[in-house]
Amino acid sequence: MASTVTLADYLFGRLRQLGVGSIHGVPGDYNLELLDYVEPAGLRWVGNANELNAAYAADAYARIKGIGAVITTFGVGELSAVNGIAGAYAEFAPVVHIVGIPPRSSIDGRLLIHHTFNDGEYRRFAAMHAHVTVAQACLTDPRTSAEQIDHVLRQCLLYSRPVYIEVPVDMVAKPLSAGRLETPIEVPQGEQDAEQTNVLETVLQKIYDAKKPVIFVDGESRPLGICKQAEQIVEGTKWPTWTTPFGKSLTNETLTNFHGIYRGKYDDPAVQSFIGDADLILIFGPHFSSTNTSAWTSIPNEDVSVLFTTKGVQVGGKLFRDVSAKTVVSQLASALDFSRVASYSPYPELPRDKSLRIADMPMDEPLEQSALWKVLAGMVNPGDIVLGETGTAGYGVREMPLPPDTRLFTPVTWLSIGYMLPGAQGAALAQRELLASAPSSGPSTPKTILFIGDGSFQMTV
Amino acid sequence: MASTVTLADYLFGRLRQLGVGSIHGVPGDYNLELLDYVEPAGLRWVGNANELNAAYAADAYARIKGIGAVITTFGVGELSAVNGIAGAYAEFAPVVHIVGIPPRSSIDGRLLIHHTFNDGEYRRFAAMHAHVTVAQACLTDPRTSAEQIDHVLRQCLLYSRPVYIEVPVDMVAKPLSAGRLETPIEVPQGEQDAEQTNVLETVLQKIYDAKKPVIFVDGESRPLGICKQAEQIVEGTKWPTWTTPFGKSLTNETLTNFHGIYRGKYDDPAVQSFIGDADLILIFGPHFSSTNTSAWTSIPNEDVSVLFTTKGVQVGGKLFRDVSAKTVVSQLASALDFSRVASYSPYPELPRDKSLRIADMPMDEPLEQSALWKVLAGMVNPGDIVLGETGTAGYGVREMPLPPDTRLFTPVTWLSIGYMLPGAQGAALAQRELLASAPSSGPSTPKTILFIGDGSFQMTV
Repeated sequence: MASTVTLADYLFGRLRQLGVGSIHGVPGDYNLELLDYVEPAGLRWVGNANELNAAYAADAYARIKGIGAVITTFGVGELSAVNGIAGAYAEFAPVVHIVGIPPRSSIDGRLLIHHTFNDGEYRRFAAMHAHVTVAQACLTDPRTSAEQIDHVLRQCLLYSRPVYIEVPVDMVAKPLSAGRLETPIEVPQGEQDAEQTNVLETVLQKIYDAKKPVIFVDGESRPLGICKQAEQIVEGTKWPTWTTPFGKSLTNETLTNFHGIYRGKYDDPAVQSFIGDADLILIFGPHFSSTNTSAWTSIPNEDVSVLFTTKGVQVGGKLFRDVSAKTVVSQLASALDFSRVASYSPYPELPRDKSLRIADMPMDEPLEQSALWKVLAGMVNPGDIVLGETGTAGYGVREMPLPPDTRLFTPVTWLSIGYMLPGAQGAALAQRELLASAPSSGPSTPKTILFIGDGSFQMTV
Repeated sequence: MASTVTLADYLFGRLRQLGVGSIHGVPGDYNLELLDYVEPAGLRWVGNANELNAAYAADAYARIKGIGAVITTFGVGELSAVNGIAGAYAEFAPVVHIVGIPPRSSIDGRLLIHHTFNDGEYRRFAAMHAHVTVAQACLTDPRTSAEQIDHVLRQCLLYSRPVYIEVPVDMVAKPLSAGRLETPIEVPQGEQDAEQTNVLETVLQKIYDAKKPVIFVDGESRPLGICKQAEQIVEGTKWPTWTTPFGKSLTNETLTNFHGIYRGKYDDPAVQSFIGDADLILIFGPHFSSTNTSAWTSIPNEDVSVLFTTKGVQVGGKLFRDVSAKTVVSQLASALDFSRVASYSPYPELPRDKSLRIADMPMDEPLEQSALWKVLAGMVNPGDIVLGETGTAGYGVREMPLPPDTRLFTPVTWLSIGYMLPGAQGAALAQRELLASAPSSGPSTPKTILFIGDGSFQMTV
């Protein structure tokens, strides 16, 4: 007889394989059995004060580690978390939302139990979660549960967005075949699209032909998995490069051709005109929400743009759907002959964010917002994670020039005030786990720094 | 030209007419204009720390005052509140959830704005709320907005369950005809059902024929609006009467024939056998969830039961749908000749909850759970509101014999831990408003008393 594992061990084993070290959540009647398997599976259990906090923490954890998980209970728990799951959807955090639900006998019998509307209808909360997740599974059949789990986790990684898994109480200890665990979950890369080679060649040619090129690194570079490749191109071309709130910190900001966030109509007129004159704009991972683009005014002219997006590669306004942005960007990074690309000489005078030393500040004058964030920037070290809550802090941190290997959280699109406090907890935990497996070589231990006002703080304290 | 009012004034005017004195909520980008109209409309604005707290508070407020309201913002706000709205649905709290949403131009243009998923889809959150509310309205047309508001509020009152109203930013100040406000919103009572007279006569006859009758007053008596009439029947018949967690405090507990919560298989065997021997059981407002019925063991034999429910009147297992329970119970209360009903003589020996005086407790022994709640019961005064959070406190308060005109909150079916703290705030506010319009004649000012443990407290503090 083939060896078996319990469903819970299968699920948690898969999460471990994918890099989950800790699971956030709140105990509740229908997930207690499931929780008994968390620590034996080698996972850390993080019990949060409430489910929204847990979801926020899992979201930030996922953005740092590449995947996160939260466990709640049926109805009351999962609905308390749903705004956090929605935020993960909006801003591409791969969060696995696991919900412990009543036993199949209760569901089949439409029993009138607690955490329901006392009407025998058990599927409402799953229907609600379908709006905020990219894949869902209700594990009611041991014969298909392993396959369902794998499918849903694959979708989570593929789209870097939340998924939803319901585990009935009586399914927790059901035996599943252990053999399947030996085959890692792999994200489908797809077959090479017929247009891919043409797109690559077209883009290469545009890069070689460009006289006034610039680069944007936006935040969907993270879910696309192209941050490193984009940075190679930024570094290799030495072209003036900007970012967005969502993209900030994803590229080495100490590169001399990095100029911080482009603020569209609110930016220096010289910058606006420089970008307006560009004849080629490479845009990695565009995310064109109003709040990420200074009310859409920082979106470059698409006629001269090449966009590497989650939908495909867009060249001069035409989207080549299913042409993998990741593949094309990777090929670009390795195929590009940087000696053939345009070089700015002299390099244009374009503003850069600067930090200030507190020692250089006048001691007899107030430290105002205009200087505060520049001073604080000087205190950030490589490897740090910086979070600025929606509001003043969220704007402030955008002005901080960051050392290499830092990560910034600033309001992007979901803008759910209260996120950053539990987010800091989740991010710090992910950071600690990453440091445990690959200690920092820097002079100081990387830390997580949260900037938040008391109004925001009270929402999720 | 007929006089007009702004949409906001119309909505808030209606809420005032229905008895709303305060609105709970949290400000957010898309409800700021709307909030400007709250206080000028004569309503108190209660800004909560977060939206879940606001929804919980509005729920408890609604259970005391008969209607409550909460205002949140699009996406982030409303989804944070949705678990509270779901609880209001499960346990019949008439809460009006008002959501400030983006202007119609953004919606029509599918603009990629904050608090969306950056994909132009604006209707997800409304679709989610349709699962947890009995009526919904998105006010996008001034020509129909007043009618929509009236319809939704009528549904809220009719079913005593939450409703959902979306107000686009650019609709807030739109003029609506003021004349309609002069006609009060009335809850449809329906036409007399053909079977109603037969049902009334059948029930009357059963009452007169009964030799061993008992009564249950359950919690849906509140949404049915039959608490007073049920109490008249309890008082007039002098029949042994029990309640449930949901029903407790809805009937005068000082009546000598009131015996507290029936605990089914966990109750005194003598009580079980007494109820088991009954030949008629009148059940007002049944709510047969597992947690309200000691795992269904306190549900009486339906063959001898007459149930007055939200669906109709059920006699001996047959439901007469659309026969108004409220009408029939009202007619019973006035038509019954109590001199003709069975009288227990001597009155059976059946246990009653008792309070204990702290002065009578041994001072050199610990005050244990078995006595604690009886001692605390002695400190509750007429008109007080008592809340016991899900968990130990929730069980404890069920053992407290309560003075007249008190109201008890104990876990019933939704059981969302964290509810009771904001619930206490909402209930206390409703109590204060009621006292302002009808001061208590009792010796002490009625107060709101919350029993909660620190674990529950942290969820919504």
